[in-house]
Amino acid sequence: MSLNKLSSQYNQRLTALLEQLFPDVGVDKQLHSLPNAVRYASLSGGKRLRPLLVYAAGEALGVNATVLDQPALAVELIHCYSLVHDDLPSMDDDDLRRGQATVHRAFDEATAILAGDLLQAQAFNLLANQTGVAASCINESMQIVSKAALDMVKGQSLDLAFENHSPNQAELEQMLQLKTGALIRASVLIPTAYVEQLPAAHCQALADFAESIGLAFQIRDDVLDITGDTEVLGKPQGSDAGLNKAAWPSQFGVEAANVRVGQLYERAIVALEHFGESADFLRFLAERMIKRSY
Amino acid sequence: MSLNKLSSQYNQRLTALLEQLFPDVGVDKQLHSLPNAVRYASLSGGKRLRPLLVYAAGEALGVNATVLDQPALAVELIHCYSLVHDDLPSMDDDDLRRGQATVHRAFDEATAILAGDLLQAQAFNLLANQTGVAASCINESMQIVSKAALDMVKGQSLDLAFENHSPNQAELEQMLQLKTGALIRASVLIPTAYVEQLPAAHCQALADFAESIGLAFQIRDDVLDITGDTEVLGKPQGSDAGLNKAAWPSQFGVEAANVRVGQLYERAIVALEHFGESADFLRFLAERMIKRSY
Repeated sequence: MSLNKLSSQYNQRLTALLEQLFPDVGVDKQLHSLPNAVRYASLSGGKRLRPLLVYAAGEALGVNATVLDQPALAVELIHCYSLVHDDLPSMDDDDLRRGQATVHRAFDEATAILAGDLLQAQAFNLLANQTGVAASCINESMQIVSKAALDMVKGQSLDLAFENHSPNQAELEQMLQLKTGALIRASVLIPTAYVEQLPAAHCQALADFAESIGLAFQIRDDVLDITGDTEVLGKPQGSDAGLNKAAWPSQFGVEAANVRVGQLYERAIVALEHFGESADFLRFLAERMIKRSY
Repeated sequence: MSLNKLSSQYNQRLTALLEQLFPDVGVDKQLHSLPNAVRYASLSGGKRLRPLLVYAAGEALGVNATVLDQPALAVELIHCYSLVHDDLPSMDDDDLRRGQATVHRAFDEATAILAGDLLQAQAFNLLANQTGVAASCINESMQIVSKAALDMVKGQSLDLAFENHSPNQAELEQMLQLKTGALIRASVLIPTAYVEQLPAAHCQALADFAESIGLAFQIRDDVLDITGDTEVLGKPQGSDAGLNKAAWPSQFGVEAANVRVGQLYERAIVALEHFGESADFLRFLAERMIKRSY
């Protein structure tokens, strides 16, 4: 099967799982805005990059996809919650996300805050209720995801603080590693929780891959925010720059940003050498993360 | 030891644990508002009722307090996060909490949202990293707490919806069971996760106790909101009524509310008969929850 097709199949699998988790309640919108908002936040498209990374790292380690369904959903829910909260008026104040009204615009602010809160709780509830795997594996997956959820919030807080402060490259990249990198790293590392006696070198190689590709991905995203257009991005071009946000390319130049992305991408690919062909799906996603124009 | 003294000792234990978890970073407030806000949200007093219920139920079941430290902290953090988010302008829009400025007033809205998000993530991170207990116990505690975290958000959403809708008694109590009851129930049930082969009747008795006392506590709280005064309550008297919120006493009368509280309290005490003297600390807390004037 082509990797493109494999990717679509996993994507459909995720849609089906999300539809099952958040079924269309089809009732009075006023009294039931929360379930509708949660559906809207998690089922309105998106690249589903993080859960795909979970499955792809699972392929590299030989972990069955069924075992990874709940953790894959969990990282997607954590990601969705972070988008809903980051878009709020007091944060990035965004009106558009994935080409649609953001949750607080489509519903209201209170519903958006609660939808985010519920998505985070739901993620941990899914992890806690995994079946068919050892309790110790469940714990390890919860440790990985909860650590990322903590780091992500710290990263967002630094990002807001940088609006009034010009960080140097190391500070900026540390923020990006927390804000975006932490959950990407967690996604790639989750399958290690289900492998008994995994050699430490394999775990380290996946961590190296994830850290490099996660940072490259965010810098590429910030370049697109400057050079892309609204229709393709699904959000207004320059929407981050408009807030005086400290972004890699605006601080150090688009050209230098592209060089840095190339460097990090190469490092990520080298880290996968350990895994031979079993990492082809990871390589495919890494390329998509960097070469995308949206 | 008197139960009053036992309660103070557990309270000091919790303060010490929270101080360790969120140490005073004492740095530039602007760049580090998040750690300061998290400390402020969790270490500015409060009754610490939920973690005390964890320890008290532990005494009833003979579970060592050391085993319960992390779960006790976790429920307190979930409670604190819910207060921070509920106080936000788009929700209950409260300026005062525990006699002090609410987090979004003392800091700003973005910081309050992030502090709440971090507190929720931290709660699950603590649970996932428990040591010295079986992995299956950890999972069970995570199941209990994550279920409550979900229900709590659903309850808050219903509470907001009821601002434009007059619920009947059953609807109102169901909302209260979600919004306030769920986390109180989880607090009381957590120690059951650490007991092997607990008789189902014991578990049921604790659940009955928790459901009755949790509902009584919230109705009592709503009565105090009508009859208490700001100085004693730590928040403006009538602050909930002012929002057209559907509260038990405002819907069905203060006198009927007091009767209902007495009925539920009695039911809670009857449920504890199973446990003899070992439940004295639970009885003490139940009395404090109902007879308090603050």
